[in-house]
Amino acid sequence: MPADDPFLAACHSGSPSRTPVWFMRQAGRALPEYRQRKGSVNILDALRDPALACELTLQPVRRLGVDAAILYSDIVAPVEAIGFGVEIATGVGPVVADPLRSAADLDRIRALDAETDMPWQAETIRLLVSELDVPLIGFAGAPFTVASYLIEGGPSREQARTRSLMLSDPELWAQIVDRLAALALASLRSQVAAGASAVQLFDSWAGSLSPETYRRHVMPATTKVFDGLADLGVPRIHFGVGTGEILSLLAESGADVVGVDWRVPLDEAARRAPGRPLQGNLDPAILKAPWPVVEQAVIDVVHRGGAAPGHVFNLGHGVPPDTDPEVLARVVELVHEHPRP
Amino acid sequence: MPADDPFLAACHSGSPSRTPVWFMRQAGRALPEYRQRKGSVNILDALRDPALACELTLQPVRRLGVDAAILYSDIVAPVEAIGFGVEIATGVGPVVADPLRSAADLDRIRALDAETDMPWQAETIRLLVSELDVPLIGFAGAPFTVASYLIEGGPSREQARTRSLMLSDPELWAQIVDRLAALALASLRSQVAAGASAVQLFDSWAGSLSPETYRRHVMPATTKVFDGLADLGVPRIHFGVGTGEILSLLAESGADVVGVDWRVPLDEAARRAPGRPLQGNLDPAILKAPWPVVEQAVIDVVHRGGAAPGHVFNLGHGVPPDTDPEVLARVVELVHEHPRP
Repeated sequence: MPADDPFLAACHSGSPSRTPVWFMRQAGRALPEYRQRKGSVNILDALRDPALACELTLQPVRRLGVDAAILYSDIVAPVEAIGFGVEIATGVGPVVADPLRSAADLDRIRALDAETDMPWQAETIRLLVSELDVPLIGFAGAPFTVASYLIEGGPSREQARTRSLMLSDPELWAQIVDRLAALALASLRSQVAAGASAVQLFDSWAGSLSPETYRRHVMPATTKVFDGLADLGVPRIHFGVGTGEILSLLAESGADVVGVDWRVPLDEAARRAPGRPLQGNLDPAILKAPWPVVEQAVIDVVHRGGAAPGHVFNLGHGVPPDTDPEVLARVVELVHEHPRP
Repeated sequence: MPADDPFLAACHSGSPSRTPVWFMRQAGRALPEYRQRKGSVNILDALRDPALACELTLQPVRRLGVDAAILYSDIVAPVEAIGFGVEIATGVGPVVADPLRSAADLDRIRALDAETDMPWQAETIRLLVSELDVPLIGFAGAPFTVASYLIEGGPSREQARTRSLMLSDPELWAQIVDRLAALALASLRSQVAAGASAVQLFDSWAGSLSPETYRRHVMPATTKVFDGLADLGVPRIHFGVGTGEILSLLAESGADVVGVDWRVPLDEAARRAPGRPLQGNLDPAILKAPWPVVEQAVIDVVHRGGAAPGHVFNLGHGVPPDTDPEVLARVVELVHEHPRP
């Protein structure tokens, strides 16, 4: 990657030529070519087909002109690769038939050898970097959020069972997230070795935790992931939704860049995570509004992003499946044309 | 009610003899007598049976020794009563077969005449106040959260479709929530007339909104409900989850007491909603932990609650169905015995 790449420059608090932009879940059902190419193949099978995973990763870069690609993946890919027993049900998300409930389940989280357990991942990345002229962001789920799927058995609104286990048996919990941290770290190191220029750790549901609970029961494992990547020198992005109460802790966990959802305006987020470049945070729900409403909201996000030492424009969460891709393309154009604040 | 009732005194920033406590969803599946008495009757049918609804409301007061009863109800009861077309599916929640999607649906939200549309509600309350020696809290859903069910067609994680409609067609949205405000107001006025000593407005999912969106698109309708109750002189409690970013606005909406979920410590909440009594906020997930962990967390909540001019102890959200009622009873005892800070 050139030294003046806009995405990497923003992540390093540099001075990019324009505000860089990409979208979480940009490779997804909002694109007709995604629906056509992926068909009914399950995502976990699609990941095992490097040509397909590569193509799905590239599609939004071609169509939308975004400044970064993100590896087409899922947060449960490493636990699935070690045989924990997780599936992704269409329209539901990750489901675990035999959830993690006691110490007896701990050894089901064995160590990951990315080269032998998921060789298709590095192969996909090697294909990608030979094709891409923008940075590729590696992808992993954070220990808390992955644990929540393993413990709840599937998606849940508030991860209550997960918090119960954490608060009732903190020793077992610490071992669970420590093992999941090792998995995320092994996967991300392998992704960077294969050519990823940055990484994003998705702690999507960390917003269900109070600051004290996050600090005591989650932050050590998350920090283990980020610290274990420090020697690689790539930007480390941290993201979750509903994280207003813990934004400063997300930054303290060792991330270089803090992702912000749509609930906290970026200028306020800059106060809570001082000195960190921010990523975000257009409300995905606004993409269905008439263009003048979208336009005003995009410009507002760009302006508020100026309060941080660097700003990567993104949505506050993933692209909704029924988004008009034409609107996404117009957003990219607007962000690129609008003067940096 | 006596002037020195602990619950009412705390709501009025007075000096109760002890910290009052009740639990959201205290009338529910956690109690064996609830499961036995309700059986497989749908909640919307149970509400139409005053003897049954009265009994379900009383059960937790008898067993747990809480300082307030809350009317057994559901936030969609008024829209169901006017024939909007909503059902409550077991294990799912409110579902709407024909969701609200356009201006053509607006007239499906007709005005509520509580006496003729839901006479069973006032009858239940009259039965209750003849039996209760603690205050009865009236129950209604706030315009935003009720609208979210009507628009999404059922429960949703982030109410994205609701925010899309609000942001895309603010005029239609304003009419929807204005009509739902009138419904909540009519229901609550009727509940107070029948004997309720306080009211709680549940805006459970308001936490999915940014402060600016809340202020512009939701607060006017919510304020209409609270202002329309002002002449009745009963404490008005406002509650939602994940509302850290909008706690000051929840207070500004006209509520007397602000409910807080488990994410924001009460001393911090007291800074965000200065001058208001607070209600909350033990993490429901902690109820499954060993008693010493529960005990420490309860005492922490009581202490932090001392930062507000009044404190009603509660959970940060509803009682989980698999809670041991014995633990709830011990929490009540502990809150009562612990010296007020």
